[in-house]
Amino acid sequence: MPIARPVVTFAVLLLVGLLTRICPADDTPASTPPNFVVIFADDLGYGDLSCYGHPTIATPHLDRMASEGIRFTQFYSASSVCTPSRAALLTGRLPIRSGMCSDRRRVLFPNSGGGIPAEEVTLAEGLSDIGYATGAFGKWHLGHLPQFLPTSNGFDTYFGIPYSNDMDRVNDAAPKGRESFWNPKVEYWNVPLIRDTEVVERPADQTTITRRYTEEATDYIRAHKDEPFFVYLAHSMPHVPLFRSPEFEGHSRRGLYGDVIEEIDWSVGQVLQTLRDEGLAENTLVWFTSDNGPWLIFGDHGGSAGLLKDGKGCTWEGGMREPGMAWWPGTIPGGTVTMELGSTMDIFTTCLSLAGGTLPGDRVIDGVDLTPVLKGKGEGARDHMFFYRGTELMAVRFGPWKAHFHTQGAYGAEARQRVAHDPPLLFNLEYDPSERQNVADDYPEVIEKIRQLVAQHRENLDVPPSQLEIPLN
Amino acid sequence: MPIARPVVTFAVLLLVGLLTRICPADDTPASTPPNFVVIFADDLGYGDLSCYGHPTIATPHLDRMASEGIRFTQFYSASSVCTPSRAALLTGRLPIRSGMCSDRRRVLFPNSGGGIPAEEVTLAEGLSDIGYATGAFGKWHLGHLPQFLPTSNGFDTYFGIPYSNDMDRVNDAAPKGRESFWNPKVEYWNVPLIRDTEVVERPADQTTITRRYTEEATDYIRAHKDEPFFVYLAHSMPHVPLFRSPEFEGHSRRGLYGDVIEEIDWSVGQVLQTLRDEGLAENTLVWFTSDNGPWLIFGDHGGSAGLLKDGKGCTWEGGMREPGMAWWPGTIPGGTVTMELGSTMDIFTTCLSLAGGTLPGDRVIDGVDLTPVLKGKGEGARDHMFFYRGTELMAVRFGPWKAHFHTQGAYGAEARQRVAHDPPLLFNLEYDPSERQNVADDYPEVIEKIRQLVAQHRENLDVPPSQLEIPLN
Repeated sequence: MPIARPVVTFAVLLLVGLLTRICPADDTPASTPPNFVVIFADDLGYGDLSCYGHPTIATPHLDRMASEGIRFTQFYSASSVCTPSRAALLTGRLPIRSGMCSDRRRVLFPNSGGGIPAEEVTLAEGLSDIGYATGAFGKWHLGHLPQFLPTSNGFDTYFGIPYSNDMDRVNDAAPKGRESFWNPKVEYWNVPLIRDTEVVERPADQTTITRRYTEEATDYIRAHKDEPFFVYLAHSMPHVPLFRSPEFEGHSRRGLYGDVIEEIDWSVGQVLQTLRDEGLAENTLVWFTSDNGPWLIFGDHGGSAGLLKDGKGCTWEGGMREPGMAWWPGTIPGGTVTMELGSTMDIFTTCLSLAGGTLPGDRVIDGVDLTPVLKGKGEGARDHMFFYRGTELMAVRFGPWKAHFHTQGAYGAEARQRVAHDPPLLFNLEYDPSERQNVADDYPEVIEKIRQLVAQHRENLDVPPSQLEIPLN
Repeated sequence: MPIARPVVTFAVLLLVGLLTRICPADDTPASTPPNFVVIFADDLGYGDLSCYGHPTIATPHLDRMASEGIRFTQFYSASSVCTPSRAALLTGRLPIRSGMCSDRRRVLFPNSGGGIPAEEVTLAEGLSDIGYATGAFGKWHLGHLPQFLPTSNGFDTYFGIPYSNDMDRVNDAAPKGRESFWNPKVEYWNVPLIRDTEVVERPADQTTITRRYTEEATDYIRAHKDEPFFVYLAHSMPHVPLFRSPEFEGHSRRGLYGDVIEEIDWSVGQVLQTLRDEGLAENTLVWFTSDNGPWLIFGDHGGSAGLLKDGKGCTWEGGMREPGMAWWPGTIPGGTVTMELGSTMDIFTTCLSLAGGTLPGDRVIDGVDLTPVLKGKGEGARDHMFFYRGTELMAVRFGPWKAHFHTQGAYGAEARQRVAHDPPLLFNLEYDPSERQNVADDYPEVIEKIRQLVAQHRENLDVPPSQLEIPLN
């Protein structure tokens, strides 16, 4: 049987391709510590990506990331709002331990004088200590005074906005109330864009901000390809007001919100392709997740939590559970879907462990090492999760169970009172992910076990003063 | 640079593999008409599969089917309950055209004397006429008298139950009301299992029924591999009462419902692997979908519509939109996610067209040919969809829009009145898949266009007497 020429050619190309992969051009030794990239979205809902079931938002790059990596179906942020969630991501600690939460002010504002305390050890500090190059690109929101900015917290460089993109509103320029969001213009919000510690643009041109963060991050990867690096790419989208580059106008069937997500998807594609092009893919662990659930009161300018209940600002699942993915070709088996629990705080512990760094030994770290889950070996190390709203412990996840000691509707929705529950409401989230059927009466022993967990948790809980309540001079 | 032996071996194996694919062992000529397999679930929700975002139901075979084929995100059944939905699937026509719906009885029952009219042309009849072998395995529900069974409607053979698995309840054996469903036993329902036209087991042993349907279907494929065939594998699960094989007890983290879905997933894997093993994969188009949305009143024995509103029995999206996938290696580009509209009725038209058969010319066919969508070429042929409840036109989808002229809560939920809307409620489903924001006031021209569509539709609508209201003698 004659062999068709294209087939032979293809096979030869495959062979060459394989050899190239096995003997990479940059001859990096296998013992090189891995690079880390954390891509963090803002207010992205559990149901907003195609690979998490959204019907009209196309996310081919994130879908490919999932198909080449691992996709978590039970991955949690540590808070349902921005500042505490980001503090937890970068410290591996519940925000109540660092003073980065409050019952009076949900997040930091331009008139806040506080920020992430100097004694907190960020992932950037931990990695910088062992020789990593560290770059932060995007939204910070852990304090806008110089001593709180990324360059004072372990990052060699920074390019981004210091707080949310809906702050510093220009009342003379913007229509009142939510009107300003429906047809947003850059000049309605006087948000500064900072390089390292200097304001370089004000108001930040948000229409191109996703693209510029991405270009800065990929430039940084190329510039640091010969040393271990940590890139923190924290998009300020899809937090309202929504903006996207001209190339993404009308890109999506899901309107402006979909355009914004599809530009973030493009951004992820750019990062992964840069890693491939530079021969770094097999030595780089990339994470993708978000800070909290969708801001539902913004209608079609907010996202979707899919089958989960409620959204941003509350401790129902829609506020806390997020898309969560990790990608590391050759180490993470492609196409894995895991139901093991994970948390943004685990990124801290996992990365530091993989890098051969040292976890701070003088404090409680809430993150766990997810490496066995990533590698598809064994069960997860995380069996519980505490859900705070401000300083109140609202709910606890333990195995498949979730007990709500208090419930309260989402942030910014019509004023809803906090309700205490004793016994707590109890849901089996693996049977009932939408939190519909309270089964507390049937499982008193589960509630007892969760009460014990709470008691243990409180035994070593030191609560410093809130940073969010410190005024600007 | 020396070439490692395993690499050479692997490349040679790849080359052999490629040649095998190009020159399949069964040397089927390219002009052989394709085989068809339609796998149909019962009461499966839009959100119940991992590839549609379910967090705790593992569906690796269906996920692989999607990654090797096409996954629709806007695929509709033609009714939100069983009998009309199945009539539409097999005839390519809205059930109102065949008398297979009613405002008094939602479906056929054991005391019904009606069934699918002889003058209807089923897909099995259309394919049988041009030489296909045709086998039906599973739930029928288009009439249980001999003249209505599959073997009177184009199928060469049949193995399955004639109506729903919760009918023929044995009142002496079963606890009252829904109690019987929570811990179901086979003997609570005296459902017959039929081979061709003979009852071969009663009550049907539902614990092994998913496995047995699968074995019958795969045996049929192997037996007919040398001729074109059509296999209709209509699982009676996950309709309550839920049963699964002993091998699937505790298989899922989602409890009994998840076990049932994971056994259906196994079944899909068996079918696809049989096609691969027999060298038929590249000449077989396989569809997977369901008859209607999840039966929400059954709590964790019912499924999830994901981000869609409501479920089985209503014309909100949760009742009508379904997982929908097609697989045909070498013809359908793998990993495609399409947002084009599709309907179960289109399976009729697409398969008959691909087979070179003739569509009945003497009647209205509502199905359209989806072949261009399957092949990734051009836009879809479907731009609208009519949503009936019984004989009432409740809602119309047109492009991204859906107008509700009447709304009514799901079948079996607390009695909710039908509400008429004039002007209709209007939703942009691509922006707002959860049907939250009525935008009728903003788009009067869309409503006018939809009213014109309805007027045209009614011009050629003949409504025969209902088959569902005919008593048994």
